[in-house]
Amino acid sequence: MHRERFFTLSASCPDRVGIVARVSGFIAELKGWILETSLHAELPREGEEVGRYFMRIEIRADSIPFHLSELRERFRPLAEELEMEWKITDSAVKKRVVMLVSKQEHCLYDLLARWKSKELDIEIPCVVSNHDTLRGFVEWHGIPFHHVPVGAENKAAAYAEVERIFEEVRGDTMVLARYMQILSPELCAAYPGRIINIHHSFLPSFVGARPYHQAYTKGVKLIGATCHYVTADLDQGPIIEQDVIRIDHSDAVEDMVRYGKDIEKTVLARGLRYHLEDRVLVHGNKTIVFR
Amino acid sequence: MHRERFFTLSASCPDRVGIVARVSGFIAELKGWILETSLHAELPREGEEVGRYFMRIEIRADSIPFHLSELRERFRPLAEELEMEWKITDSAVKKRVVMLVSKQEHCLYDLLARWKSKELDIEIPCVVSNHDTLRGFVEWHGIPFHHVPVGAENKAAAYAEVERIFEEVRGDTMVLARYMQILSPELCAAYPGRIINIHHSFLPSFVGARPYHQAYTKGVKLIGATCHYVTADLDQGPIIEQDVIRIDHSDAVEDMVRYGKDIEKTVLARGLRYHLEDRVLVHGNKTIVFR
Amino acid sequence: MHRERFFTLSASCPDRVGIVARVSGFIAELKGWILETSLHAELPREGEEVGRYFMRIEIRADSIPFHLSELRERFRPLAEELEMEWKITDSAVKKRVVMLVSKQEHCLYDLLARWKSKELDIEIPCVVSNHDTLRGFVEWHGIPFHHVPVGAENKAAAYAEVERIFEEVRGDTMVLARYMQILSPELCAAYPGRIINIHHSFLPSFVGARPYHQAYTKGVKLIGATCHYVTADLDQGPIIEQDVIRIDHSDAVEDMVRYGKDIEKTVLARGLRYHLEDRVLVHGNKTIVFR
Amino acid sequence: MHRERFFTLSASCPDRVGIVARVSGFIAELKGWILETSLHAELPREGEEVGRYFMRIEIRADSIPFHLSELRERFRPLAEELEMEWKITDSAVKKRVVMLVSKQEHCLYDLLARWKSKELDIEIPCVVSNHDTLRGFVEWHGIPFHHVPVGAENKAAAYAEVERIFEEVRGDTMVLARYMQILSPELCAAYPGRIINIHHSFLPSFVGARPYHQAYTKGVKLIGATCHYVTADLDQGPIIEQDVIRIDHSDAVEDMVRYGKDIEKTVLARGLRYHLEDRVLVHGNKTIVFR
Repeated sequence: MHRERFFTLSASCPDRVGIVARVSGFIAELKGWILETSLHAELPREGEEVGRYFMRIEIRADSIPFHLSELRERFRPLAEELEMEWKITDSAVKKRVVMLVSKQEHCLYDLLARWKSKELDIEIPCVVSNHDTLRGFVEWHGIPFHHVPVGAENKAAAYAEVERIFEEVRGDTMVLARYMQILSPELCAAYPGRIINIHHSFLPSFVGARPYHQAYTKGVKLIGATCHYVTADLDQGPIIEQDVIRIDHSDAVEDMVRYGKDIEKTVLARGLRYHLEDRVLVHGNKTIVFR
Repeated sequence: MHRERFFTLSASCPDRVGIVARVSGFIAELKGWILETSLHAELPREGEEVGRYFMRIEIRADSIPFHLSELRERFRPLAEELEMEWKITDSAVKKRVVMLVSKQEHCLYDLLARWKSKELDIEIPCVVSNHDTLRGFVEWHGIPFHHVPVGAENKAAAYAEVERIFEEVRGDTMVLARYMQILSPELCAAYPGRIINIHHSFLPSFVGARPYHQAYTKGVKLIGATCHYVTADLDQGPIIEQDVIRIDHSDAVEDMVRYGKDIEKTVLARGLRYHLEDRVLVHGNKTIVFR
Repeated sequence: MHRERFFTLSASCPDRVGIVARVSGFIAELKGWILETSLHAELPREGEEVGRYFMRIEIRADSIPFHLSELRERFRPLAEELEMEWKITDSAVKKRVVMLVSKQEHCLYDLLARWKSKELDIEIPCVVSNHDTLRGFVEWHGIPFHHVPVGAENKAAAYAEVERIFEEVRGDTMVLARYMQILSPELCAAYPGRIINIHHSFLPSFVGARPYHQAYTKGVKLIGATCHYVTADLDQGPIIEQDVIRIDHSDAVEDMVRYGKDIEKTVLARGLRYHLEDRVLVHGNKTIVFR
Repeated sequence: MHRERFFTLSASCPDRVGIVARVSGFIAELKGWILETSLHAELPREGEEVGRYFMRIEIRADSIPFHLSELRERFRPLAEELEMEWKITDSAVKKRVVMLVSKQEHCLYDLLARWKSKELDIEIPCVVSNHDTLRGFVEWHGIPFHHVPVGAENKAAAYAEVERIFEEVRGDTMVLARYMQILSPELCAAYPGRIINIHHSFLPSFVGARPYHQAYTKGVKLIGATCHYVTADLDQGPIIEQDVIRIDHSDAVEDMVRYGKDIEKTVLARGLRYHLEDRVLVHGNKTIVFR
């Protein structure tokens, strides 16, 4: 992350000759100063004839002689010609991240420490929880806290309330920081590529409940955590980031839970940062992550 | 691994008060000099009342005033009283390891380099393969090579031949060094805890064929390898060792195959060494590994 | 860490035949139930004839038919015979850990999250800082905060005040959680093996100030952090734990600082836990760590 | 590495607006199909006003309508305008790699396995050694072996002979695969950026002789290996790749040597591959590595 204000173009389009030349030529004509460029050509998938091209370019804002809105307008014709999915974001506009938590504090402490030190340069308009446990900690940081209980009988209403809050605060991204609840399919469908979860296993191993117990029973020698976008398929959304830690036979399930927390919070923080810096481009059920 | 000759007692028994005192008392009475001791109390499994105790003790051979056979005889009454499964091995007696390979050379080169430098202080009475590809390399090392083709129609005969060779050369351990064939249930059953395989995924993910393709399709961010004992259940035997390596979106399946080889050979070599040094004790479908 | 109350014997003595037998025999006579045993024979150092033996044994408190003080008295004769350095601690007696911080919050947030979730089952009688920055956060947790400024002219007085506070609250361990000040030799000498620091490099590389700048200039491909006991020799005390993280040419010093924080807090937390569970035995300028 | 033949442009030049546009524009005009692009803007170093821009671009050979020599000629004016250091290589022209070894076989076995499986798609015109130990193994692979003894009295002559052999076989790269000898300053100076060494420590820690002994004495918790270009400054050349492995107090120096070998050979193989694929660009005493 650079200190100067910059615009980030992230885009994908069908692969063809000259994409980089066209896009970088467009920027050069404006005398745009490129800070960072990441490019990737994905091979055609089975049954496809053409691969897909992905890019992410950071341009110093003060090298562009007009506003972001005009930059977008000027870029649009080229984007349409190249059949791009694209966006240009502004590093000076902080993303608004709503966190959903339950009772466990490790991910929340970790994220708020990063927010307080401006390592995560975001706004947190509120934290939502199905328990009231972490209210004091959140409110001490000056962040509003919403207690939205989720029971067997009120799920639909509860998730409608979560959605209402997210809309009301104009949230960009929803982070399930060990929220421990399965969102409704409607909520998942409403925000594709905008809800991030941390699952406490190295997916695709140990989907669902009690993954550390599953890992203990199986006798694996490493345990892991997976940060992924939430889709209606439980623990099946596009993977953003993963990591593992070594365990051995002397580790009981409780030890694995303890070790796992360190991986969970680190992997979630990394995955979230990639997302917030527009480094993650979704391609079907996979991700391109320009670290 | 120590330079002096030593005896290794590896044992397990129902947990109770005083196991260590009894066993170490037995050794102390003989004035046995202990080089290394590893102990582990495994909690009772579901439905069991008593846990299980595991131990591995290295004793300098020259501190014991008689031969190994007598040491075994003297230890037997205590072992029976404690209801032990146990063995005592001699570091001066090299294990006889039969390797099964196919066409890929990376694990074989790796293991033979370790054998040549005496890092793996074993005897390799022969290498068996379903192809003739690696004959020259094996024979150059002065190791007999047996070509036992395995086709759809002759599987039973082929595995009977593998078993015959293994028996004939008095093999202790069979290593599937990327053998790429599924052993017959009979062969698996004949040598429980004595056949070691390297599977090219981080099990339990991606069981079976073409795990790197599975990993590519899933979009995982780390790939791995698993060294395990072979049982009749494909890729389900007790895990001895695992490791992973980071990949990203720019890695095609062929890149993953290439990265994976480095993990496969390292994990296999580590797992095999643990096994050969009697550091692996099997407990149901899990292992205790005293590294 | 077990849930039942237990006593932990940690000890070292000159190596000889029968140490384990004597100690485990002592415990077995009391019908003491051993939860965990770790043993290590360290080879003689240059110029020494005898190696040193290290042990750590956890015994269930309710299996011992008398109080800890009596256990200690009964063990003393054996300890003296074996010329042991030893102690027996009680898992029910929480260690009192005084934290020293400066302005950076990442280690403090991390440690307090672990304390709040009882992963670190300690008492924190107070936090001491040379700045007032983190007072609110600490006090919100109900922990007293002492602001002890350290300037060029008042160092001796400042460290005398730190020592007074530590004594007053009967601290067991002092943790420098990115304190960024060099303690006086007197303070270091007063508490050998009781002051823990986290240094933001993979020691012995990059001793002293601005290690990430040093790493950037050198062009290393991994950066690390080191948790060690503080001695009067800057960054030279016995190493308890270390870890590294991969970087590349695209990472500026600020990126390395950011990545480094994740390693710093994890390594400090691991090292501190080993220390608090009496898993660390110092041997000259090295440590035995029974994980 | 792609299967199609491709040309690789690797270049660096003073940073300015429009570099990517100019270079990619040049390629697009030829209808060149870009397989992979890596770009990096290095910040100005102390005392410099302008940073430096690095690039590596793979172009499918069959998309370029003329030969490589003409491609070079056509690119030259742009390269000169941008004040580039540059080269364009052809994936169909195998690099000629001369290996220098001593008595240890682990790196040589590893590299020859990669060469035999075409993972390293190189030519090995010969292996040079100061001992005759590995002759048979090398010659079995059909590779000439030269025994060039190096003694205290004949160093100059020996290194002159090494240089003569390297020239005679038209070597591109010299790999010190645990050669264990310090090359003469003249030889180092003759081939800047073309001699690759593997040092058995995590540099800058433990420069020089017996790094594992140094690591053991220091009590570090991880040991490592470093692949770097050789310069006249011992173990100080630009670092290409590094990695580490965890050890603990139970590991003697011999164990560290054994663990270290696995890291050495892997790190050397990775660093060498980066070099051979023109992924390493040297920038003063650091490297840009486009993995």
